[in-house]
Amino acid sequence: MATINDNYLKLKAGYLFPEIARRVNAFAAEHPDAPIIRLGIGDVTEPLPEACRSAMIKAVDDMGNRATFQGYGPEQGYAWLREKIAAQDFQARGCDIDATEIFISDGSKCDCGNILDIFGDNNTIAVTDPVYPVYVDTNVMAGHTGEANDRGEYEGLVYLPINAENNFTAAIPSQKIDLIYLCFPNNPTGATATREHLQAWVDYAKANGSIIFFDAAYEAFITDPNLPHSIYEIDGARDCAIEFRSFSKNAGFTGTRCALTVVPKTLTAKAKDGSDIQVWQLWNRRQATKFNGVSYIVQRGAEAVYSEAGKAQIRTLIDFYMENAKIIREQLTAAGIQVYGGTNAPYVWVKTPHILTSWEFFDKLLHLVNVVGTPGAGFGAAGEGYLRISAFNSRENVVEAMRRITEKFKA
Amino acid sequence: MATINDNYLKLKAGYLFPEIARRVNAFAAEHPDAPIIRLGIGDVTEPLPEACRSAMIKAVDDMGNRATFQGYGPEQGYAWLREKIAAQDFQARGCDIDATEIFISDGSKCDCGNILDIFGDNNTIAVTDPVYPVYVDTNVMAGHTGEANDRGEYEGLVYLPINAENNFTAAIPSQKIDLIYLCFPNNPTGATATREHLQAWVDYAKANGSIIFFDAAYEAFITDPNLPHSIYEIDGARDCAIEFRSFSKNAGFTGTRCALTVVPKTLTAKAKDGSDIQVWQLWNRRQATKFNGVSYIVQRGAEAVYSEAGKAQIRTLIDFYMENAKIIREQLTAAGIQVYGGTNAPYVWVKTPHILTSWEFFDKLLHLVNVVGTPGAGFGAAGEGYLRISAFNSRENVVEAMRRITEKFKA
Repeated sequence: MATINDNYLKLKAGYLFPEIARRVNAFAAEHPDAPIIRLGIGDVTEPLPEACRSAMIKAVDDMGNRATFQGYGPEQGYAWLREKIAAQDFQARGCDIDATEIFISDGSKCDCGNILDIFGDNNTIAVTDPVYPVYVDTNVMAGHTGEANDRGEYEGLVYLPINAENNFTAAIPSQKIDLIYLCFPNNPTGATATREHLQAWVDYAKANGSIIFFDAAYEAFITDPNLPHSIYEIDGARDCAIEFRSFSKNAGFTGTRCALTVVPKTLTAKAKDGSDIQVWQLWNRRQATKFNGVSYIVQRGAEAVYSEAGKAQIRTLIDFYMENAKIIREQLTAAGIQVYGGTNAPYVWVKTPHILTSWEFFDKLLHLVNVVGTPGAGFGAAGEGYLRISAFNSRENVVEAMRRITEKFKA
Repeated sequence: MATINDNYLKLKAGYLFPEIARRVNAFAAEHPDAPIIRLGIGDVTEPLPEACRSAMIKAVDDMGNRATFQGYGPEQGYAWLREKIAAQDFQARGCDIDATEIFISDGSKCDCGNILDIFGDNNTIAVTDPVYPVYVDTNVMAGHTGEANDRGEYEGLVYLPINAENNFTAAIPSQKIDLIYLCFPNNPTGATATREHLQAWVDYAKANGSIIFFDAAYEAFITDPNLPHSIYEIDGARDCAIEFRSFSKNAGFTGTRCALTVVPKTLTAKAKDGSDIQVWQLWNRRQATKFNGVSYIVQRGAEAVYSEAGKAQIRTLIDFYMENAKIIREQLTAAGIQVYGGTNAPYVWVKTPHILTSWEFFDKLLHLVNVVGTPGAGFGAAGEGYLRISAFNSRENVVEAMRRITEKFKA
């Protein structure tokens, strides 16, 4: 008899965003005229930059001629894209990262999950709390945890709280951790990590033979020139860190799909016999065997992100969303609601007013003012009492949503 | 200390196609003027159908307007694509498959590998020999095998030979198998499965609680009207089979990337406590957590495959490649070389002449006549003594390659 992976049965309820979609759709079905404004799922709303669209139309045309037609591409991505990323995103910031260390993929979510394929099942794993649910759920699926308790915490995972009490930094653990997920600028709290904080993490990882999974999906939203954009700006990170990046949020690629993962060739981990194995070689083999590369058309669109026109258009997009974030922060603060984040990240982390739980505040926002946020508790136990508001929407919708929220919930 | 997945160390050498690329690139570097014709990797060469390109250009334009911009799509694919597939590929052939049972992905290779995520580690697994290497390698990576022997066979896998002696059919096993990979029309042999043969497999699977992974990536190349295109044309298959399909070979999407996997809602497998768990729900959860859907632009291109214009253009493409296959078969046969396949599949399975091994014949073809094939031994021990010739190339190249081969190797 074929058997299932029983670890899936440990997963609590639905994945967060489908659950939000379910509640919003149910409300919308009952109130078809409700003017719902969605500031929940971190999904971009503004048109794809013209430079990217032009490049993709040219790429579609390439597909129409035998001489320029593209069949299977390299599983790791085209060199012309990897080289531009290495030069502009990394080398330009002083990071010693080579084009062959960059793997193009169809999404950071996929890579964050798939990366576990190449690591052992006996690693001790730490996540922050609150946390992007994919880090946790993929470890549950891989059998790296026990059951969840009634706070939603899985046995066997180490949770590092990030909250107002510790100024939203992840404290260096006292015990030995093998694999650590860090995301800065942080989803969902919008918090950032200083160079000193990341250096402490890199020093810890090197001292303990740990590997840091560094999710930098929101690096483009950093406005403070002193904050690092990449973990590889930190001394020693080449020996202990994998970095995930995405075109989803900076270039508006959530529906177009392109991302990248950096695996330095100097990074090793232990085989059972104690030998040091190059992680790059394992990830390269994994991708060559279980992946077939990203669409040529989409990779040409991503390449245009690095053109002069593309860079200017993306700057405009990011400035637009960050102005939204500023409006959200200022309006809520003026209404007496406590907020965090939103200055170097497109997310504002809102303390729920009136002692509401996260899901109570979510439901009240939806039902009373027809605004969708993301309940903090959906990101982990330490997210209870918070709600994430995303800056990804039109100016008009952001202003209107803030008008409705502040009117109804002002202190 | 972070540890690796030691199972990766069991993998033999490189994945087949990168190894071929390595040898071809080395030869080309030494002989830059050699007129190499590639009939190795099964990669399409002709332009993408005009209907697909027009649809993708319109989709790129959609991305340029706020009102039609697409952010995150459903992880399972857009309903407008899933419904057309369900209606035209399945219901039109009498298969009871619903749109919600179809999951759109970026490649069959990915899905064939990822499907193992949702199954237990204690299943007995069978593959045919020769076999598409991804089925084997992904099981090795997942820890479902022991080490490989010197024939390249992994301990713990059950190999079902398909060769000239058994007319290239996979015999129903005498022992109990839990998960069975079948690919028809077959890659690499070009063999087909009759309705009766597949019925025997479905009966076996139902009697034993097994699940069949049916790879139908080449169904569009079937010319014999009596052959089934889908496993779901067989009574009972909804209860025991998952089917993988791809737009790579019919519509030329190898570089554009779109595929689909069918998981019927009636399919179950056993949890450890003996209960029956719906497989659809596990795959749906896997995809929602570890995947973010296929590019909107690419899905619009795939949708055009089902338009009247798209269907006509794809028919022309397939007829073109199948005429290539006919030329290959006829020319080699006339030269006294034994061939199989190539009548309902784009692959011709060539018995190596002069008692050459597969890799010897590969090297001789490359060095003596500058033609690239795929060594049969690369697909498994039972592929030794064969070489796969792909019909994916221009008419001119196919004719020229056959001229060179038959002149040099005629019996």
